[in-house]
Amino acid sequence: MANLGFGLIGTGFMGRTHAIALQSVATVFAGVAAPRLVSVADHNADDAAAAGRDLRFERSTGDWRELLEDSAIDVIDICAPNYLHYPMSLAALKAGKHVYCEKPLALTVAEAAELAALARESGTVHAVGLNYTTNPLVQTAREIIASGEIGDAVSFTGRYFEDYMASTEVPFTWRCDRSLAGSGALADLGSHLVNMLHFLLGRPKRLCGDCRTVIPKRRVTATGEERAVENEDIASALVELDSGLPATLEISRVASGYKCGLQFEVFGTLGSIAFDQERMNELRLYDAGQRTARAGFKTILAGPTHPDYGNFCPAPGHGLGINDLKVIEVRNLVRAIERNEPFQPDFEEGLRVQQVMAAIEDSSATKAWVELPDETTGASQ
Amino acid sequence: MANLGFGLIGTGFMGRTHAIALQSVATVFAGVAAPRLVSVADHNADDAAAAGRDLRFERSTGDWRELLEDSAIDVIDICAPNYLHYPMSLAALKAGKHVYCEKPLALTVAEAAELAALARESGTVHAVGLNYTTNPLVQTAREIIASGEIGDAVSFTGRYFEDYMASTEVPFTWRCDRSLAGSGALADLGSHLVNMLHFLLGRPKRLCGDCRTVIPKRRVTATGEERAVENEDIASALVELDSGLPATLEISRVASGYKCGLQFEVFGTLGSIAFDQERMNELRLYDAGQRTARAGFKTILAGPTHPDYGNFCPAPGHGLGINDLKVIEVRNLVRAIERNEPFQPDFEEGLRVQQVMAAIEDSSATKAWVELPDETTGASQ
Amino acid sequence: MANLGFGLIGTGFMGRTHAIALQSVATVFAGVAAPRLVSVADHNADDAAAAGRDLRFERSTGDWRELLEDSAIDVIDICAPNYLHYPMSLAALKAGKHVYCEKPLALTVAEAAELAALARESGTVHAVGLNYTTNPLVQTAREIIASGEIGDAVSFTGRYFEDYMASTEVPFTWRCDRSLAGSGALADLGSHLVNMLHFLLGRPKRLCGDCRTVIPKRRVTATGEERAVENEDIASALVELDSGLPATLEISRVASGYKCGLQFEVFGTLGSIAFDQERMNELRLYDAGQRTARAGFKTILAGPTHPDYGNFCPAPGHGLGINDLKVIEVRNLVRAIERNEPFQPDFEEGLRVQQVMAAIEDSSATKAWVELPDETTGASQ
Amino acid sequence: MANLGFGLIGTGFMGRTHAIALQSVATVFAGVAAPRLVSVADHNADDAAAAGRDLRFERSTGDWRELLEDSAIDVIDICAPNYLHYPMSLAALKAGKHVYCEKPLALTVAEAAELAALARESGTVHAVGLNYTTNPLVQTAREIIASGEIGDAVSFTGRYFEDYMASTEVPFTWRCDRSLAGSGALADLGSHLVNMLHFLLGRPKRLCGDCRTVIPKRRVTATGEERAVENEDIASALVELDSGLPATLEISRVASGYKCGLQFEVFGTLGSIAFDQERMNELRLYDAGQRTARAGFKTILAGPTHPDYGNFCPAPGHGLGINDLKVIEVRNLVRAIERNEPFQPDFEEGLRVQQVMAAIEDSSATKAWVELPDETTGASQ
Repeated sequence: MANLGFGLIGTGFMGRTHAIALQSVATVFAGVAAPRLVSVADHNADDAAAAGRDLRFERSTGDWRELLEDSAIDVIDICAPNYLHYPMSLAALKAGKHVYCEKPLALTVAEAAELAALARESGTVHAVGLNYTTNPLVQTAREIIASGEIGDAVSFTGRYFEDYMASTEVPFTWRCDRSLAGSGALADLGSHLVNMLHFLLGRPKRLCGDCRTVIPKRRVTATGEERAVENEDIASALVELDSGLPATLEISRVASGYKCGLQFEVFGTLGSIAFDQERMNELRLYDAGQRTARAGFKTILAGPTHPDYGNFCPAPGHGLGINDLKVIEVRNLVRAIERNEPFQPDFEEGLRVQQVMAAIEDSSATKAWVELPDETTGASQ
Repeated sequence: MANLGFGLIGTGFMGRTHAIALQSVATVFAGVAAPRLVSVADHNADDAAAAGRDLRFERSTGDWRELLEDSAIDVIDICAPNYLHYPMSLAALKAGKHVYCEKPLALTVAEAAELAALARESGTVHAVGLNYTTNPLVQTAREIIASGEIGDAVSFTGRYFEDYMASTEVPFTWRCDRSLAGSGALADLGSHLVNMLHFLLGRPKRLCGDCRTVIPKRRVTATGEERAVENEDIASALVELDSGLPATLEISRVASGYKCGLQFEVFGTLGSIAFDQERMNELRLYDAGQRTARAGFKTILAGPTHPDYGNFCPAPGHGLGINDLKVIEVRNLVRAIERNEPFQPDFEEGLRVQQVMAAIEDSSATKAWVELPDETTGASQ
Repeated sequence: MANLGFGLIGTGFMGRTHAIALQSVATVFAGVAAPRLVSVADHNADDAAAAGRDLRFERSTGDWRELLEDSAIDVIDICAPNYLHYPMSLAALKAGKHVYCEKPLALTVAEAAELAALARESGTVHAVGLNYTTNPLVQTAREIIASGEIGDAVSFTGRYFEDYMASTEVPFTWRCDRSLAGSGALADLGSHLVNMLHFLLGRPKRLCGDCRTVIPKRRVTATGEERAVENEDIASALVELDSGLPATLEISRVASGYKCGLQFEVFGTLGSIAFDQERMNELRLYDAGQRTARAGFKTILAGPTHPDYGNFCPAPGHGLGINDLKVIEVRNLVRAIERNEPFQPDFEEGLRVQQVMAAIEDSSATKAWVELPDETTGASQ
Repeated sequence: MANLGFGLIGTGFMGRTHAIALQSVATVFAGVAAPRLVSVADHNADDAAAAGRDLRFERSTGDWRELLEDSAIDVIDICAPNYLHYPMSLAALKAGKHVYCEKPLALTVAEAAELAALARESGTVHAVGLNYTTNPLVQTAREIIASGEIGDAVSFTGRYFEDYMASTEVPFTWRCDRSLAGSGALADLGSHLVNMLHFLLGRPKRLCGDCRTVIPKRRVTATGEERAVENEDIASALVELDSGLPATLEISRVASGYKCGLQFEVFGTLGSIAFDQERMNELRLYDAGQRTARAGFKTILAGPTHPDYGNFCPAPGHGLGINDLKVIEVRNLVRAIERNEPFQPDFEEGLRVQQVMAAIEDSSATKAWVELPDETTGASQ
């Protein structure tokens, strides 16, 4: 297979993370053809040039649209700010490129739906960078649930807590501006949690949500004036899944003390599993079939018997990091393109996540339970 | 102060726990007059006699109503099954006795309201055995919140998970029968969690609840036939407190692996606290004012600088047990009677807890947010 | 069986802890005859009288020797300062009483040997209050090792870390004075750890020890002058057990942050166990026979399937406290007397512990490995 | 600065890990010139060729000596089996190359001393791959100790537990053969722990060691026959540091349940720190200056305020992995070469580590305390 050419848009941190993953994926995963880092775009041509050097791309440009016309580029890799995900993905799909877009896919359901529809018809591979599910232990959690090891699932509880907005001193930024960020904690954190729920147990059928902006005003650094925050600090939901099971979701960007608190527990009739991203190399498993006097949650350390771990390290318990999850994601992308198979999570999943986020906001506004739309788009999942 | 005479109804485990606490309270807490263990009642007179011997009461009876007329008895201590809490408390109040009733206070709001109204007029001390809040570290948590150490509270999240009904093999018992148990996980576990929320942050104003019976039928041991479970395995709620703050509650009796998983977290603008009853001698505290490179959750071990701990042990980190919490509860009761002060949690609180439990069930049934009744009963809290 | 009469010497905290245990043991353990709290002695007669009232003894005295002649007293219960353990135990044995002495049994091996020899001939029950081994989970740990569940043991590592002397501001007290305390961290903490090692795996055959006084001088509060500390802050040892297995011991009273850090791990060819007294309701167990991808340490919560727990509480995970361990110890004592059986740990064990402590000090002084004396005293263990 | 050319010897796992680090270092650390992956050697030319392709080196060879004469190669990177570290390092130094050798530096003190002496005179950069100290939180631990944040250090306790040889079913491999592996647990694990001790608190002055082979025979897979294991499963030591402080070391390759259990605690007069490599993104810190009722160990999550973390990820708590530590190590190496500065840990440190390992073995053999050699080699550390 020929080496795929990547064109990266965005030279901020996600851009750098993608570049690291592109550079190491072929060494980590034997048999993967090394991606070509063809060109990097930034709206500032000088920044683009500097990034091109630092991140070791072949060339750079101040105009991302040039990447669309570059025949050496197979994949448009979008690490620009949230509000640009939609127009860039749209343009990339129309240009017939494969698209690898950071989350969230879009700011609204309408945008996401348009992208998903176009992607469905495009024949190209489309990917959303919701990478927590690539964790070897999260993959293992899905295996455990699917195989019946913990019996029939009876409920799910999930949280994503961080504290980057917990202080009243945190200023008003683009994250507080609906036109630039879309929703607040839901877009930043909730999108990952909803994707995780889908990955493990499937989709919500209906839900009741509650969104709160508990720090209603923040100071604009430039002007020193206070401005009303336009999206939620906290979002919670009671959920009924398609399977009929109950689930709860709690998302907060004002959860003091949490830095990456994506946590979930799945309860079954024969056991349960628990995961916490802040200890991403541990999976807790309870097997109800144990002799009572010896029963307890096990703490399983990630190791080479879990999917993909062994490509990074042959020894258990030595630990992967967050950037390693991106390498797995890139491997999945390259493989999907090579095999002409759908990537997961794709734009359909991006749309489904957006639908759940919107439903939580709608429900909160109307103080009523909300039904999720039927799945109408076939293909993937 | 004269030694208070106790008449205990119920010789099962809670009865024994109460007897242990009554026997040790005066030694643990200097200055507390040792309670007299006057009489113990059980509907079976032989069981009562045996318990009288084992638990070292002065006398016993097969008829609990005899305790009401016993002039040596100041306090009626009710450890009978849930459905008897209401008639026994009613009779005790009418007899002019102090009442110490295990939780839940009643099976319905109507029963609880009648008891609370009567108690309010009685001039006696009335107590509900919701003992988790007597934990020195839970008292400390309340101090931390009230003092502003973690700034202004912004949200609460609480769970009470146990797994005593997680297996489909667990038979149909009185706990599944609404006429004997009232609600399910809500009555057993939720009552504690709601009381905890009240204790730390105050009352709900409105809520949206969701109750689920995920194992709908269980086998009746005697007949071998399956019978429909009449109350919920899981109850969850989105809550808005009187203060306007958001809270979430999750309660489950089918949470495989959890044995006493009463957990809460309170988030504030300057920090947060977290507690887990399975590690009842630890309180986790995050102080957002720390230098970032040294910031982290602290694990505080219970010690003599926390309320009441030093009466059990002068050394920190040595650990209290669940039965010690009952000793503190009994000390609180004896002191309230001595000082003619209200006890907390009293029958008003028993009613408030029942109102929240009922609201969760109502909301689940109507699929709508429910308002909590105004506080109309003054006096306590 | 008649109710045993107890005479308590010492009204400080250990005295109170014993009194609590004496009062509740018969209620916790059905079938145990309630001890009589006959008399309490303190060298100050007023203190004795006050304690008699608070702790509810029948009488009190300013002269502990009166207890020896009191025919209502079966058991002399010694909670006086360390340097009095020897003369009081000696007198009690000579008076033909059962003896229940707090740890350490004596200040020197010679004293302990004299007591053990006398005890052996006495025909009475003799007990040393080394209570950590009564923990239901520690009993379970011993079962696991003895049954071969973790295969053949290959090594032991144990620590007892506390921080009550960690600050240089802690003044010189009796604990720093060899004539009053004997050794330092070894006597306070090491005695428990050595007893734990004996309990789980047996006796040392030889060892190499290292004792250090890392804060060599402390201020005498009364005079404001500095005085040289006369015993060790830290003691460590490499040990070879009678079985040939290697063990390590680390003991410190200057381990900042630890409040009751008695920890051990036992490794076997098929698994391992780990315990930490600061989480005394948890036992960690690793079973090497698990499928690798599901292998991990289990955290077992104490529950009614573990020895003695169910007498305190029928529900798992609800938690015992340090004082509950003393109740089990008292039950063991009463039962040993009733059945005329040896108690464990008895004065022989008190001697063996003292021998190990002395060997660590000797080895440290001579910078050489030291052999432990042969077991010469038969009977117990 | 020109891009440094690397010649890698060894295509096993460490070789791959090095290749990944070489490929990503320049992207992770802006300003670092990307290394050239010039040539890879393996004794099997076909393996070398395959590795050359997979790991993306410019060329490959079946003869590692060719690398020494390759003018495009600046650094000889040695990832061959332990017994080859010495001859390869020797040859590389003699060829005037910079040397980057995996641990342990050699099999004996004599070999290590020869290498250190030659390195000292070479004028090139020499590095040993003891990478655990590059962890941002371990660097932070050193800062905390050095700055006096925990007061004056009073003791160190360190362990490195793994279980790769815990089962009696693990066959006899090269690791059990002294001529190929040198010592056992000491070489594999102890070298890291000793380096950690040096890094944090300095060198041992004298020590008493105890080495044990608890599974004395293992089966040779090829022949089915048992063969005597030639090195230790467990090594422990009591240590006195140059500073006079006591330290203990415990190393085991038969510690069932541990996968990467490199743990240390440093106690000071004002606090303490604790680290566990299995939770490599957490540092536990106790500050004795806290108000007692709020005192407890903090769990600090790694973040961008800790050294080097921010180059991998701008968000705290997201987690680095073991391979990221190798990237930091390679950055340190490239920087040392660019600046013509010593690298730490260098061959001097490799020698010092070897001296401690040998002293533990000598002490164990002679059952006596052993003095460490004076530092005679100046230059580094």
